[in-house]
Amino acid sequence: MAQTLQSSPAQSAAHSGARTDSRTPAQLIEQLALAGRSAQRKLALMSDEDKARALRSAAASLRTHAGEILAQNAKDVAAGQANGLTGAMLDRLRLDPARLEAMAAAVENVAGLPDPVGQVIDRSTVPSGLELVRRRIPIGMIGIIYESRPNVTADAAALCLMSGNAALLRGGSEAVHSNRAIHAAMAEGLAAGGAPADAIQLLPTQDREAVGAMLRAAGLIDMIVPRGGKGLVERVQADARVPVLAHLDGICHTYVHQAADPEMARTIALNAKMRRTGICGAMETLLLDAAFPASGEIIGALLDAGCELRGDARAQALDPRIVPASANDWDTEYLDTILSVAVVDGIDAAMDHIARHSSGHTDAIITADQQAADRFLAEVDSAIVMHNASTQYADGGEFGLGAEIGIATGRLHARGPVALEGLTTYKWQVLGSGQARP
Amino acid sequence: MAQTLQSSPAQSAAHSGARTDSRTPAQLIEQLALAGRSAQRKLALMSDEDKARALRSAAASLRTHAGEILAQNAKDVAAGQANGLTGAMLDRLRLDPARLEAMAAAVENVAGLPDPVGQVIDRSTVPSGLELVRRRIPIGMIGIIYESRPNVTADAAALCLMSGNAALLRGGSEAVHSNRAIHAAMAEGLAAGGAPADAIQLLPTQDREAVGAMLRAAGLIDMIVPRGGKGLVERVQADARVPVLAHLDGICHTYVHQAADPEMARTIALNAKMRRTGICGAMETLLLDAAFPASGEIIGALLDAGCELRGDARAQALDPRIVPASANDWDTEYLDTILSVAVVDGIDAAMDHIARHSSGHTDAIITADQQAADRFLAEVDSAIVMHNASTQYADGGEFGLGAEIGIATGRLHARGPVALEGLTTYKWQVLGSGQARP
Repeated sequence: MAQTLQSSPAQSAAHSGARTDSRTPAQLIEQLALAGRSAQRKLALMSDEDKARALRSAAASLRTHAGEILAQNAKDVAAGQANGLTGAMLDRLRLDPARLEAMAAAVENVAGLPDPVGQVIDRSTVPSGLELVRRRIPIGMIGIIYESRPNVTADAAALCLMSGNAALLRGGSEAVHSNRAIHAAMAEGLAAGGAPADAIQLLPTQDREAVGAMLRAAGLIDMIVPRGGKGLVERVQADARVPVLAHLDGICHTYVHQAADPEMARTIALNAKMRRTGICGAMETLLLDAAFPASGEIIGALLDAGCELRGDARAQALDPRIVPASANDWDTEYLDTILSVAVVDGIDAAMDHIARHSSGHTDAIITADQQAADRFLAEVDSAIVMHNASTQYADGGEFGLGAEIGIATGRLHARGPVALEGLTTYKWQVLGSGQARP
Repeated sequence: MAQTLQSSPAQSAAHSGARTDSRTPAQLIEQLALAGRSAQRKLALMSDEDKARALRSAAASLRTHAGEILAQNAKDVAAGQANGLTGAMLDRLRLDPARLEAMAAAVENVAGLPDPVGQVIDRSTVPSGLELVRRRIPIGMIGIIYESRPNVTADAAALCLMSGNAALLRGGSEAVHSNRAIHAAMAEGLAAGGAPADAIQLLPTQDREAVGAMLRAAGLIDMIVPRGGKGLVERVQADARVPVLAHLDGICHTYVHQAADPEMARTIALNAKMRRTGICGAMETLLLDAAFPASGEIIGALLDAGCELRGDARAQALDPRIVPASANDWDTEYLDTILSVAVVDGIDAAMDHIARHSSGHTDAIITADQQAADRFLAEVDSAIVMHNASTQYADGGEFGLGAEIGIATGRLHARGPVALEGLTTYKWQVLGSGQARP
């Protein structure tokens, strides 16, 4: 299918064998980034209605080309089976009509989100008489580096486009046919809907050197978003010269304070660990206050639900089924039915443990004591801090953002779930009446 | 004097010869950063009144120790003279009682600014019943790398402290005695005023390897702010693995649209170039619309004021005193009484020129045509865009921020003049009532 859809000029050039061969990876990235930046300048001026129309056209194109996308996806799945991908990896890779429809619907959902571009952050008039307006603008050129899930191609493209950013996408080799088909369908739809042709580009090579060139393209690419496992994020964070929006680990804690409601604590602990163990917001460590009277019930419920518990000596004393935790356990993101458990003496000990071992993603306190909750919410320095809720709520959709490009644990720009607003920055507009500075 | 003031524990350790010798630069930076991060956690919980009190105490300590600071500064000035520093460099280095009083007053000014920490950015309640609060928090540990002006030691320390951040300061070798004396006086005053001892640390060595270690200390230092000339900023941006808040160039444009008021255009152009030629907001390129009838008067006024004009062929036709511009001139920040001048055909040509040559710092349009102004303000993609005002207003004080740590032209986090708010980030506080995610 990729051949039957119209490619953008830069994509066509990038696909042309002769020119590809003569370019270094850095030259290829420069060419793509400059084409993207040029498209982005047009995109930045499109109204929210215009961007929404282009995205709805892209969603329609995904549906029109469903057969071709599924056929290309079948090639990837067959290759994955031949290459011995695990069942979980094949599941992430596989598309079917329902998943493809969900992908198109997700693009339409983004089209319906409020557009942050042009919003006034604040406005003031200073003594010189100048009026200052801080106004949201797109960040510019976003690089997305992702692994086997082909739906990221559509999701990330939609979020970037709706926030006025150009995107350069680089998906995993195992999904190369799927990604090309999805990108080609999206690009056709976006162009038909009035968006600039190079707004969303797919890196035309799986050469790993080209990924390295993306990571080093400071000044050409404004931000990199890695989407995938820890190995990918670690490599991107280590090598990037471009700012990276990401989180490495989700080592999320739930602290059950002495004044926690026992039934609420049991329900939340069970949910935070067992609802879905493989997501970054899943609880990985449970801290039980020594003064909380119902720790045994929570532990029993987790064990009965099939969770392996690894505890310190005081936790082990609560139930003989708890195995000893090693020093590494406190710093491990299991993403599995395993949980580390420690007994702590009061909120300060709990917050000390969290300060040492949290990955800064999401940490929660369960308590009926408002003062304890206020201290925890103020002093725990993670992107998301929760009171009386399951850490599994750490999600852009649950936060009312409509979608998310990822969850960030860095300390600049955007933290926690990041969606359209997190893909913008601002400029100062200064409105004068002839002021010359004394 | 540095010896007579109490040093913080980490500083004392760092000054101890035996331990310094046995540590690599990376180990030194790690030790200082961990001490600073520990102090920062206490600082993050101080109220605005407490931080203001500590800063006023630091200002008082600068006054108390004025004699010692000036004596140490005299050593630096004498060494600078012996080492052949230029007159301009010696002037930047030299302190006198008036400059020291201004330094103390600047610290008190920062103490009077509104504290952004704890401010609620937004608040919402989502369908699950969770209440979400986005609240400003300090960024964390800020590294400041600066050149000969010793007042940066006090300025940067005050801005970091008031915004709840720890600072690790590294000043230039030519000001080493001045910086140590100022830092020691500040540290004494801050500690006496109740701030944690390691909140503001001065790198105890001038070893350039230690600067390299600061730039690579991702995870230990959250942001680097270089303050100084282009060479310093360029090196920091090239080598840093930690995010950098800075601008490299201030190649600022003023576009005189055909509908500009001639008198306003002349006044603003003269001010934007000649008020102070050495600041980053000084105009470096003047774009004259071919349809603007009074270009000759503006050019005459600039030439008469002693400015060298370098023009394209059409500008040269306006006045025989204009010399030819080379291709490099359009990308040069003169910081001097030199200006490049081009004649352009309409706003699109002006914006094209700016897109190619602006450094993204500050660009202005002079016009009485609101539609042209609106287009310029929307489409020119610089940190600051101005209508009918001199680019010399690009300044945190003039923007009502009370001070500035610098002006940033990056595309993430904070852009334009950056003061207290730009030294913060946020966290999400999630307030539940027992929610477990379905």
